[in-house]
Amino acid sequence: MSQPDPKRVKTDDDAPYELIYWPVIPGRGEFVRLVFEEAGVPYSDVAQNIEKGMDAVKSLTSTDNIGDEHNPPALAPPALKHGDLLISQTPNILLYVAPRVGLAPKEGNGVYHLNEIVLTILDGLVNELHDTHHPIAISLYYEDQKEESKKKSEYFIKERLPKYFKYMQRVLDAKTSGEGPWLYGDSLTYADLVLFQAVDGTKFAFPKSTKALKKSGEYDGVFKLYDAVKERPNISNYLQSDRRRKYSEGIWRYYPELEEE
Amino acid sequence: MSQPDPKRVKTDDDAPYELIYWPVIPGRGEFVRLVFEEAGVPYSDVAQNIEKGMDAVKSLTSTDNIGDEHNPPALAPPALKHGDLLISQTPNILLYVAPRVGLAPKEGNGVYHLNEIVLTILDGLVNELHDTHHPIAISLYYEDQKEESKKKSEYFIKERLPKYFKYMQRVLDAKTSGEGPWLYGDSLTYADLVLFQAVDGTKFAFPKSTKALKKSGEYDGVFKLYDAVKERPNISNYLQSDRRRKYSEGIWRYYPELEEE
Repeated sequence: MSQPDPKRVKTDDDAPYELIYWPVIPGRGEFVRLVFEEAGVPYSDVAQNIEKGMDAVKSLTSTDNIGDEHNPPALAPPALKHGDLLISQTPNILLYVAPRVGLAPKEGNGVYHLNEIVLTILDGLVNELHDTHHPIAISLYYEDQKEESKKKSEYFIKERLPKYFKYMQRVLDAKTSGEGPWLYGDSLTYADLVLFQAVDGTKFAFPKSTKALKKSGEYDGVFKLYDAVKERPNISNYLQSDRRRKYSEGIWRYYPELEEE
Repeated sequence: MSQPDPKRVKTDDDAPYELIYWPVIPGRGEFVRLVFEEAGVPYSDVAQNIEKGMDAVKSLTSTDNIGDEHNPPALAPPALKHGDLLISQTPNILLYVAPRVGLAPKEGNGVYHLNEIVLTILDGLVNELHDTHHPIAISLYYEDQKEESKKKSEYFIKERLPKYFKYMQRVLDAKTSGEGPWLYGDSLTYADLVLFQAVDGTKFAFPKSTKALKKSGEYDGVFKLYDAVKERPNISNYLQSDRRRKYSEGIWRYYPELEEE
């Protein structure tokens, strides 16, 4: 068996960045897109073509996929191809890309703090929001787990949403957050983009609840950061382009009945 | 406001490693412990003292905690203190520690493959197993969501468990897995320890289902790797010591009714 030395899996830094993700929905691919868009770094996005996008994801997730000589197989998209390297898992892709495009420090331990904030938002707020409409099984339709969804959403709105907003506000209140609106240090990092997308998706899925959080005045820093990211020239252009998908299926879905009291 | 430069958050590599985690249960702290135990690297574990452990976790998770001049606040344990650095989130702690103790490459892109495997196991198999006994709300007792737990467990056993075991087997079948039983390259890495603990916890929580997976013969590599980790001298010593907690509450719980047909 051919034996790659992990130390020798190198990348040509001039190689193109190629995102593999489901077409049509924003989903987890959106966190990766925002990093490239803010940095102004070119990337290809297979999801731009519905048929090619579907084929790419299906071949990635096929149980016949046992990777190649450089890369182990991925379980799920998003995946990122960069030269010979293919990596998956959203926080992992962000961790790889962000320092290379100027959205995370290249040296020192700051990146572990950023990764910690990003993991908390993705593994917590984003995953739990997804589970509000699929609490029993991902293979069932929402309609077949509606009752449980309603029950889970009640706790999500009452307990979990404030918990995560409070956490993000605490990070902004910390000494490690700088003079600007950013989560960590004095300038925008990829963690700020992750917060933006997580809040934006939450606004779509739970508009009434997000409005109530804003009105409480307890999370002003979070909403200020959200606005600051939205107004970044590159992000603003992107959000108005057709590269930005509309919310529909996937993680962030709008089922008004889940917010009804 | 004092302004730390993220690039300047340095660590004294000779500083002691201090794990902060809930006392009594193995939980997510176990993934961190296994790394130190296998590497034979000393670490302190505040959970060794029930009262001190509870106090440390409570002060970590308190909403009054807004971190310090070096570190943003954590949402949840485990956390790791190393000199002035305090970081949280299991895969993040592992990513920091493993290259320092010889259980991940220090250079190159191999670490992104390891991180991807670890995130898939932790975010997937481990989190979903946890949710089998808490599908509606973490703040409710199991007894108050027993019906939903049973329903979720049926899909977990039928669909999700085989999906993750198949994924782990695919990684072992890949060319990037070496001659030995290991997930990536020719020697044991922290990803192998993560697989071991995830499978060990699954065996405890769903013994009949895990036995059936083993009997199927489809995941021989996974169980061979599990055995190989268990037989490592340092791990074997650790598992027989009183530093290893018994399963009880937390992620891995045994509710026989969840496996009944």
